[in-house]
Amino acid sequence: MSDPFSSTASTLDDIRRAHERIRPHVHRTPIFTSRTLNERFGAELFFKCENLQRAGSFKIRGAANAVFSLSPEEARRGVVTHSSGNHAQAVALAARLRGIRAIVVMPENAPAVKVAAVRAYGGEIVFCFPTLASREETAQRVVEETGATLIHSYNDERVIQGQGTVALELLEDVPDLDLLLVPVGGGGLISGMALASKALRPSVTVIGCEPEQADDAFRSLREGRIIPVEHPNTIADGLRTSLGEKTFAVIRSLVDQIVLVSEEAIVQAMRFLFERLKLVVEPSGAVPLAALLEEQVDVRGRRVGLVLSGGNVDLEKLPFRTG
Amino acid sequence: MSDPFSSTASTLDDIRRAHERIRPHVHRTPIFTSRTLNERFGAELFFKCENLQRAGSFKIRGAANAVFSLSPEEARRGVVTHSSGNHAQAVALAARLRGIRAIVVMPENAPAVKVAAVRAYGGEIVFCFPTLASREETAQRVVEETGATLIHSYNDERVIQGQGTVALELLEDVPDLDLLLVPVGGGGLISGMALASKALRPSVTVIGCEPEQADDAFRSLREGRIIPVEHPNTIADGLRTSLGEKTFAVIRSLVDQIVLVSEEAIVQAMRFLFERLKLVVEPSGAVPLAALLEEQVDVRGRRVGLVLSGGNVDLEKLPFRTG
Repeated sequence: MSDPFSSTASTLDDIRRAHERIRPHVHRTPIFTSRTLNERFGAELFFKCENLQRAGSFKIRGAANAVFSLSPEEARRGVVTHSSGNHAQAVALAARLRGIRAIVVMPENAPAVKVAAVRAYGGEIVFCFPTLASREETAQRVVEETGATLIHSYNDERVIQGQGTVALELLEDVPDLDLLLVPVGGGGLISGMALASKALRPSVTVIGCEPEQADDAFRSLREGRIIPVEHPNTIADGLRTSLGEKTFAVIRSLVDQIVLVSEEAIVQAMRFLFERLKLVVEPSGAVPLAALLEEQVDVRGRRVGLVLSGGNVDLEKLPFRTG
Repeated sequence: MSDPFSSTASTLDDIRRAHERIRPHVHRTPIFTSRTLNERFGAELFFKCENLQRAGSFKIRGAANAVFSLSPEEARRGVVTHSSGNHAQAVALAARLRGIRAIVVMPENAPAVKVAAVRAYGGEIVFCFPTLASREETAQRVVEETGATLIHSYNDERVIQGQGTVALELLEDVPDLDLLLVPVGGGGLISGMALASKALRPSVTVIGCEPEQADDAFRSLREGRIIPVEHPNTIADGLRTSLGEKTFAVIRSLVDQIVLVSEEAIVQAMRFLFERLKLVVEPSGAVPLAALLEEQVDVRGRRVGLVLSGGNVDLEKLPFRTG
């Protein structure tokens, strides 16, 4: 367990191979900057715009890496996942790009807009009860019945490696970063990014950003074991999941710190990104900027990468008062 | 009147010089594309993102060209304008960039958020009654009292030339455009863009896009004389103004057509830009896409540039239902 690069099978080379594999299928997302924010924080901030990624979030990277890693024989039997969020759309799109079947297990109370998004990418939906146990059992049954390959949304090497490509691109564009601020849900994004960035640039500090209302990574790191999240009550719907064994192993070894942010700061950060950067960012993607607004991280004089992880918001439920 | 290039003093060379002049002060804005829209319309669409421009709209181009054209003696006496919209912020920012005084005449009922934005850029505000006559008289009085140079928001050669730089950049990035779709308010943007694009690429078609509820350019072109807008009742607040003599002369000679769009289509276009391109675009900037949604223009098989002219929206008054 002491060597993070062996505790998972992932290395920088794997992540580079993942990048080659997915490059034809994903966007190389741009980096945005803001003079106003740089002046306010006395730092140089670089926002990696995964909200502009295909299917609206970084999730297509991991999903595409998993789908395009399958042997022809595996591919023929399709893929299955359980998710009601961005990973569901990402797997459906990745499967369509390879021309294979995707079955997505979703809770029967999933929002209609999420169900429609998966179907729009050609995904088949199997409904289950809205419990983690039912999701996992249903997915397992689909695996047994169809021979499809399960693609977990974060506790999967191929997915972690795919998400790690965000760091490859960011450090290619801004090589001398001092600090990376990354949202933490199940930990796939931060695990992949920590593996890539610590290998490429050992001096970089990697900080996970988590809502106070879903502080399981913070508590897991403190306790030294995975503490599942209970009743997460946060607007950042992408960050309500608990860590997995694979992601916890990497986070424990390579992530320097987890910081917590309030719900108010998340909304304030979203608002800033809308009003000043003119970018639609979902609540989860605004969490790193929220950490700066609440002065959870000292960035003065430093070059800081922040991941705007996704842009899938329900416009009819924006957290801004309307006149 | 028959030669548009002489009816205004503006030529392609003037616009190129404007570009050199403003380049250090404005963003070279990116171009976004959407596979979904390209498939839907059977065309290739290129969105020029002036919503990502400094101060949130293309207006900084014209304002900066005017401000940086001033002689040192003129600059010393400052600039004045009357506007309650994006031009007001643009003049305030341009003046600050040159280190000179900007006085902005605004109606006393201007929204507080607009007043605050001008002040944030260091502009001084002089309030007037909410009529065009009062705005013009007040601005004229400021000119007489201070010797400041008036920068009209569109009926000004330097402003038209500055706005024309949008077309220079767009045609540099996408040289083989067939069609340009441009919002029309006072006509500064479309005049400058028509002058530049027809000189660079005579085969390009330039179409102005206007709300049905503020159809003065459409009617002016039909009647062959400037018909002022009366009681414009459109969400596209940037397009409520009437044409000026200088802009009408260019539009009459160089613009191929004006098309009209409904309020519903404007909101639908804004929503698409938010949801799919993840871009915050103000209603005026969504008008060209609205023209496609309502099939006002046949774009099949063509390469089409659309200007997302600005991104300054009041988040508390978004036209989307909230849950």
